[in-house]
Amino acid sequence: MKRTTYAGLVDEQYIGQTVTLAGWVQKRRNFGDLVFIDLRDREGIVQLTFSAANQAALDVAQTVRNEYVVAIEGEVVARAEGQENKKIKSGGIEVKVTKAEVLAEAKTPVFDIEDGVNAGEELKLQYRYLDLRRPEMQKNLRVRSKIMASATNFMDNNDFINIETPYLAKSTPEGARDYLVPSRVYPGSFYALPQSPQLFKQLLMGAGFDRYFQIARCFRDEDLRGDRQPEFTQLDLETSFMSAAEIQELVNNWVKQIMKDVVDYDLDTDHITHLTWQESMDRFGTDKPDLRIAYEIKDLSETVKDSDFGVFANAVKDGGVVKAIAVPGGADHYSRKDIDKLGQYIERFGAKGLAWMKVTDEGLNGPIAKFFADDAAEAVLAVSGAKAGDLLLFGAGRADVVAASLDYLRRQTAADLDLIDQENPWRFAWIVDWPLFEYSEDFDRWIAAHHPFTMPNEEDLHYLNEGEDPHKAHAQSYDLVLNGYELGSGSIRIHRTDIQEKMLKALGFTKESAEEAFGFLLEGMEYGFPPMGGIALGLDRLAMLLAGQDNIREVIAFPKNSKATEPMTEAPTPVAATQLDELGLEVPEQEKAEKE
Amino acid sequence: MKRTTYAGLVDEQYIGQTVTLAGWVQKRRNFGDLVFIDLRDREGIVQLTFSAANQAALDVAQTVRNEYVVAIEGEVVARAEGQENKKIKSGGIEVKVTKAEVLAEAKTPVFDIEDGVNAGEELKLQYRYLDLRRPEMQKNLRVRSKIMASATNFMDNNDFINIETPYLAKSTPEGARDYLVPSRVYPGSFYALPQSPQLFKQLLMGAGFDRYFQIARCFRDEDLRGDRQPEFTQLDLETSFMSAAEIQELVNNWVKQIMKDVVDYDLDTDHITHLTWQESMDRFGTDKPDLRIAYEIKDLSETVKDSDFGVFANAVKDGGVVKAIAVPGGADHYSRKDIDKLGQYIERFGAKGLAWMKVTDEGLNGPIAKFFADDAAEAVLAVSGAKAGDLLLFGAGRADVVAASLDYLRRQTAADLDLIDQENPWRFAWIVDWPLFEYSEDFDRWIAAHHPFTMPNEEDLHYLNEGEDPHKAHAQSYDLVLNGYELGSGSIRIHRTDIQEKMLKALGFTKESAEEAFGFLLEGMEYGFPPMGGIALGLDRLAMLLAGQDNIREVIAFPKNSKATEPMTEAPTPVAATQLDELGLEVPEQEKAEKE
Repeated sequence: MKRTTYAGLVDEQYIGQTVTLAGWVQKRRNFGDLVFIDLRDREGIVQLTFSAANQAALDVAQTVRNEYVVAIEGEVVARAEGQENKKIKSGGIEVKVTKAEVLAEAKTPVFDIEDGVNAGEELKLQYRYLDLRRPEMQKNLRVRSKIMASATNFMDNNDFINIETPYLAKSTPEGARDYLVPSRVYPGSFYALPQSPQLFKQLLMGAGFDRYFQIARCFRDEDLRGDRQPEFTQLDLETSFMSAAEIQELVNNWVKQIMKDVVDYDLDTDHITHLTWQESMDRFGTDKPDLRIAYEIKDLSETVKDSDFGVFANAVKDGGVVKAIAVPGGADHYSRKDIDKLGQYIERFGAKGLAWMKVTDEGLNGPIAKFFADDAAEAVLAVSGAKAGDLLLFGAGRADVVAASLDYLRRQTAADLDLIDQENPWRFAWIVDWPLFEYSEDFDRWIAAHHPFTMPNEEDLHYLNEGEDPHKAHAQSYDLVLNGYELGSGSIRIHRTDIQEKMLKALGFTKESAEEAFGFLLEGMEYGFPPMGGIALGLDRLAMLLAGQDNIREVIAFPKNSKATEPMTEAPTPVAATQLDELGLEVPEQEKAEKE
Repeated sequence: MKRTTYAGLVDEQYIGQTVTLAGWVQKRRNFGDLVFIDLRDREGIVQLTFSAANQAALDVAQTVRNEYVVAIEGEVVARAEGQENKKIKSGGIEVKVTKAEVLAEAKTPVFDIEDGVNAGEELKLQYRYLDLRRPEMQKNLRVRSKIMASATNFMDNNDFINIETPYLAKSTPEGARDYLVPSRVYPGSFYALPQSPQLFKQLLMGAGFDRYFQIARCFRDEDLRGDRQPEFTQLDLETSFMSAAEIQELVNNWVKQIMKDVVDYDLDTDHITHLTWQESMDRFGTDKPDLRIAYEIKDLSETVKDSDFGVFANAVKDGGVVKAIAVPGGADHYSRKDIDKLGQYIERFGAKGLAWMKVTDEGLNGPIAKFFADDAAEAVLAVSGAKAGDLLLFGAGRADVVAASLDYLRRQTAADLDLIDQENPWRFAWIVDWPLFEYSEDFDRWIAAHHPFTMPNEEDLHYLNEGEDPHKAHAQSYDLVLNGYELGSGSIRIHRTDIQEKMLKALGFTKESAEEAFGFLLEGMEYGFPPMGGIALGLDRLAMLLAGQDNIREVIAFPKNSKATEPMTEAPTPVAATQLDELGLEVPEQEKAEKE
């Protein structure tokens, strides 16, 4: 039997026709001599009816159970009046089956194949092929596929050359931990799986390709969080002879095309916000602001520096800041207990408590309101912009702690109160003019805010000179943010050896260690590299957002769990001793190696 | 200066316009007060002229050397009559430069940036960014890019879902050697880089995606040959509920689209040849025949089994074969010495010599002609189809040795004599009905001819039963061949646990080892897997053929050399001891690890 269409696509237009379908048994119901089967394929569900008029088919139907794979032939008829199901495309019809065949039997699935199924994450990953049968997962991976097709198409139409760079590459310091691949030809030597194609794409610009594009897998051996995976995918591009602004405009058009193709949304690229990094930090406490939320952080340091409320006055006196958000309509929504919970949450950012006041028609309200009478209250209301009914939430202390706290509180309260703008659901923003360096608590030293190949602003180049403070330099870098998520990170790159050497020196490299790590790049630049810049967008995150999910695992076919294990195959696994011998490797703690 | 177009695209249509260009100095020539520069970018070359009319620009021009990166502004003018260069698009014009800027200086390149440059392969790989500047390499990678865009586009239009499968996967036996990736979380456990997405795509069919597509990187840690790389790329697809013939038709249309988009060739898919594996071996001595060569192998075993020429008679008597090709016009072309050389070459296949005869108007000629008088000569001519002027080349002995020898001789003589059909330059063929197993000299046992998941022919399923000879079974597999190269390999897959278990048993797996290696797949099949089949086309090889190259390194941006090293970055390299510590690894022969 040769399939004529998908089960989920059969609708009224097929009435009177004979169709051949194949798919999975979603459900079987018996009514006396009649059997009804919901047949499922990737496009949806159709109702099959079996009756004694076709006894052989009825006999087959009697034997099938959920998740059996069957092929059928039958006639499409309108459902009896009142029996329609408006929720599905095929809800107006049913298929009277004349022939049926079981293509594969199935054990009872370990969980039901339906959205919202109540099964643990680990079990779902172990039986991923069952989990992926759910309509929601089918949709998620199709969104991802559409993004790739649209992105590739746009790039091809814009003369970008899709070039694959090596996955067996050289291990370089700086950045995250590399996954290593032992070499059999040179025991003791290793390839590294690339954390990004950054250096290769710069070399491709040096090679004159002018416009490079790749859907590139990247690898980082880091401890995992909700939105991290050991391997992830970037929509990666690089261009020569273009300014940062030109690249941003190109990316705007790219994203516009993707939004149109994937979610049929007309993105108005003229209204994509540009914010300097400093402005974003000031107004939103984060470098990835969610612009769907209207209320912003206000700086009250000047306003309260002489306040009777010692916490605020002292914060400013000690070199810190006092800032606040006014949550519209928050006064009635949050109980004191709710606010205590918010206060506990932000302790993870280093906050020592959460000061708050409610704004009523009568004035300020709450435990610290007594410190803000008359003029002080006026000033707070004026600067914060709070109105009657609002909840004022304050951060006081170190600037970074206040920023992280108020960023969280802004997003959390907006979620609680449904204050996320649904009319403009896709709010992109460019964050520009980043610091070139940032201080890393992890490494206890200055690291590149983006990566060591980022070009400083022209007017800041001198900061890299002997005797100046390189950490004052800002960079020609630009991040694309969508709805509070960093979608991608780009910059103009250094294309001259002299600047690159200074940059590496500022990062603590010696002449020798720079040579060992990046010698091939430094040498390449001596042979005429063009000015260049590019960006990489995170495909996983973009797919997650466009599919309406909140975890990238939902848009990855076979993700790793939080221990970097793939529960279905159980990778990673011990391997045969001969395999290690060939690589000249020993695992001294082999006995420890057995996974629980 | 914002570039207005590519240097190589400026032609007569631009005359009178001001253009801004950027690129590399291909060549500078001084004529008195005039300077001519050939400016190169990815689209080609344009001639720039500098004169004292624009002194500042002239001063810049005087300083530049080959491979400097410059930006210029100038006016496009027609070249003086007689000065045109018809070989290049911009040959009718030149650009009178009014402004010029050096964007990057360049050392003298280690080899000239031009096609056919006389530099060693290793040097070219070390300075790959220079080698890639050559027009030929630019074209090669653009061909590859076009293939990817066309392939993706076709797949998207045909409702295939592009799904990325893991690169950090499980090591499985069977097949080539895996590249391993040590796990930090579980010291002593390893991921493997997949040799293909085979199992994942079968699981995706089990998950109901119905049509899967991926441009997939694959990894094999094998010793390298001219057309092998440690990592390579497949255009990989899988479908559910389709027959082998339907899949072949789909692939025909896919390839037709790619040929149209990439090399503007109208492929007539109705005339793609289908050959059984046996027929291909009989007629061409290979499973990847080059159908552009008209002459085929003829079986003369019956004809010469009683020959006076003992070599032939004995070959047949000993269970071997005698076969021949008649090389059109070969009689005059090859000297006895030439033929001796061919004979020496085929010794590598196990041939013990090369019997031959020339066909003249007077009859057969050559050392063994004396054994073929009158009727014997008539018979040889009749069966071989040789005509006056042809060279008859014979193979005698074991069938596989004869096949390999005559396959080589057919292709070599066709190349020598220009007997490769240029009128039909793209000869695709499907090779079908393969043996399910083949004997591996390397492993000294039977292995799967394709892979262990290949479905036997329906009527051969019984051969897998207890007490029967599984090696008699043929498979529902199909290879796509182009001009003598295997482009891709596909099959209908086993979708039922019982058949899969029998297949693994026939391959020497025990119940336990099968479970350990493929337990997740065997278990998956118990939950209702659909009939499925697919194919993977080798992107590297397809790009090589469409770009007119004879080595896949020419269509890979940063290939490895024959020792699996990437000479530019020198990967693989030793890594820091801390990296090994984190992985719980020791390299006992560390002293051996230093690469020469």
